[in-house]
Amino acid sequence: MIKINDNFLKLKASYLFLDIAKRVSDFQVANPDAKLIKLGIGDVTEPLPKSVLKAFHAGVDEMAGRSTFRGYGPEQGYAFLRDVIVKTDYHARGAAIEADEIFISDGAKCDSGNIQEIFSADVRIAVPDPVYPVYVDTNVMAGRTGPNVDDRYEGLVYLESTPDNGYFPDMPTEPVDLIYLCFPNNPTGAMATKEQLKQFVDYARENQAIILYDAAYVSFIRDESLPQSIYEIEGADEVAIEFRSFSKNAGFTGTRCAFTTIPKKVKASDSEGNMVEVHGLWSRRHSTKFNGTSYPVQRAAAACYTPEGQAEIHALSDFYLRNARLIREKVSELGFGCVGGDNSPYIWINMERDSWEAFDLLLNKAGVVCTPGAGFGKCGEGHVRLSAFNNYENVSEAMDRIAEAL
Amino acid sequence: MIKINDNFLKLKASYLFLDIAKRVSDFQVANPDAKLIKLGIGDVTEPLPKSVLKAFHAGVDEMAGRSTFRGYGPEQGYAFLRDVIVKTDYHARGAAIEADEIFISDGAKCDSGNIQEIFSADVRIAVPDPVYPVYVDTNVMAGRTGPNVDDRYEGLVYLESTPDNGYFPDMPTEPVDLIYLCFPNNPTGAMATKEQLKQFVDYARENQAIILYDAAYVSFIRDESLPQSIYEIEGADEVAIEFRSFSKNAGFTGTRCAFTTIPKKVKASDSEGNMVEVHGLWSRRHSTKFNGTSYPVQRAAAACYTPEGQAEIHALSDFYLRNARLIREKVSELGFGCVGGDNSPYIWINMERDSWEAFDLLLNKAGVVCTPGAGFGKCGEGHVRLSAFNNYENVSEAMDRIAEAL
Repeated sequence: MIKINDNFLKLKASYLFLDIAKRVSDFQVANPDAKLIKLGIGDVTEPLPKSVLKAFHAGVDEMAGRSTFRGYGPEQGYAFLRDVIVKTDYHARGAAIEADEIFISDGAKCDSGNIQEIFSADVRIAVPDPVYPVYVDTNVMAGRTGPNVDDRYEGLVYLESTPDNGYFPDMPTEPVDLIYLCFPNNPTGAMATKEQLKQFVDYARENQAIILYDAAYVSFIRDESLPQSIYEIEGADEVAIEFRSFSKNAGFTGTRCAFTTIPKKVKASDSEGNMVEVHGLWSRRHSTKFNGTSYPVQRAAAACYTPEGQAEIHALSDFYLRNARLIREKVSELGFGCVGGDNSPYIWINMERDSWEAFDLLLNKAGVVCTPGAGFGKCGEGHVRLSAFNNYENVSEAMDRIAEAL
Repeated sequence: MIKINDNFLKLKASYLFLDIAKRVSDFQVANPDAKLIKLGIGDVTEPLPKSVLKAFHAGVDEMAGRSTFRGYGPEQGYAFLRDVIVKTDYHARGAAIEADEIFISDGAKCDSGNIQEIFSADVRIAVPDPVYPVYVDTNVMAGRTGPNVDDRYEGLVYLESTPDNGYFPDMPTEPVDLIYLCFPNNPTGAMATKEQLKQFVDYARENQAIILYDAAYVSFIRDESLPQSIYEIEGADEVAIEFRSFSKNAGFTGTRCAFTTIPKKVKASDSEGNMVEVHGLWSRRHSTKFNGTSYPVQRAAAACYTPEGQAEIHALSDFYLRNARLIREKVSELGFGCVGGDNSPYIWINMERDSWEAFDLLLNKAGVVCTPGAGFGKCGEGHVRLSAFNNYENVSEAMDRIAEAL
């Protein structure tokens, strides 16, 4: 008889954003005339930049002629895109990444979810708490955890990010092999300094661990002293895999393009102790279970690296950062502790009360949708996340309403 | 110390199409002036249909305005696409599939590769031989097989498709839980009758097995008596998952869109014997590890279902089928046994010699690239696959050259 993967049954009953959608929908049914302002999910609201649109259309036009038509593309992505990525995102920042170390994909969520497949079933996993649920859930599905007890999966090591440590995850106090990190952080919006990241890189080098570094929000960094890539840290190219995305910098959440960087120096052991290039394993996974990103979309993504494109995407993150700063200001004025909003589109607010209770309060009293911190882990309790992805007028109105409600 | 998933080391050294690319590249270096005709990989060559292009551009245009911009879409895909799919591909053929049983994705390769994740690690797997390598390799990576011995993975059940059984895979003679089938078949081009498919559906119902039915080449079926969907077989909606794609019918190999159909009646057992809806498991997998197909691409795919789109994609498969018939005719004239080419873009030729030797012969003597049958499994030995994805002039020239070479 056909049997299911029982690990799926360990997953908490429903995905965070489905819970939220349900409460929002209930509120709307009960209050059909209320104007809701959504600062919950991290989805962009602004149109694609002009140069991106132009390249996107041009890519579609190529599909109209027999001589310019594109079928299956190179499995790692087109060179025209990989080349501008390494030049702009890496070489210009002093990181010696080569174009054949870049894998173009359709999303950082997919890549950061699938990457665990290439590692052993018994690797010891460390995740920050609070955490983007995908890192955890994909390891649960793969059987690397026990059951969920008291909001934590047995077998995972949780690196706590709390008001006490400035929301920078604690170093592991027990041995771990695979460490998920995300900066600028989702959900907290906290950013890491080079010195802080170096602690993790040093740990990984000393313990032969690998860091999975999610840098999907890098375009919001405005403090030039902060690292935009983990490869700005010496030695990271031996121990780190980096995830990047066009979702938040260029508004590609509905267009779909991202990339994953795996330096060839990153190695892991097989069961007999031989060191194997992780790059080759991911290449095999990528070419077996993926079939490339849409050609016109890759053309659109490449346009982000033209001078016009660079100016446009910078303006786009400036647009959201203006909102973020306003949220941070208003929240601080109300006397709540918070982090994020300076180099990040997220503001993580210490509400000092049950986080679903805080969610319901903001929804019912202010008509504002946030994300309850508890949805991101035990250390999220007491907190909510506000996102800057909306227009300034709405954000401004939301903050006025919140001030009144509280 | 970080360890790799050792199952990856069981995979045969390199992917079939990489081997082929190497030999072709060596030939081109040695014969820089030779005009190669590629009838190997199943990639389309003709431009996207006009109505698809128009909808694709319109979808991009929507991304240009704040009020029409689309961010994250519904996780199962947009209703405008799922609705026309069920109406045209299912209801019109008498199959009672509902729109919420459709999952839009970026490729049938991805879906047919990822689907195994939702089943137990110890399910017994049956694959046809010859077979599309993705079905096998993804189960090897997941640890469901032993090592590869004599071109077969221990632990898999191979259903042989040979000249003796008309290239229709044998029924399993030992118990299996999960059965991969593909019709029109890749690589053989063979098609199944309703009676033949019913044997497998009956087997699955009697043995509580599930059929994974890959129908990526359905648009090439011209014999109206043949089933276009497995759901045309009574009871299949309780035991079958179907994979469809826009790659071959509408030329989307570089554009990327596909869908997977999972009827809610399909169930599997958890370890305690409770029956669980497979639909819910895939939904959870899909929403955790995937983030939707590009919005303009979904708009482009939906245009295939307009009256103009239907006529255009029909003409597109007619274009390739004309080539396929020519190949089949010429091969038969040369006295080789073959299958496919009537309701399929592939022709599977019994060369009665080592298949890599046949590959080299066609490459070196005729300048024609085929795919060696051995790359698809032990029963592929002695065979090569020719694909109709090229223009008529090239196919015609290729067949003349082959006739001369042999």
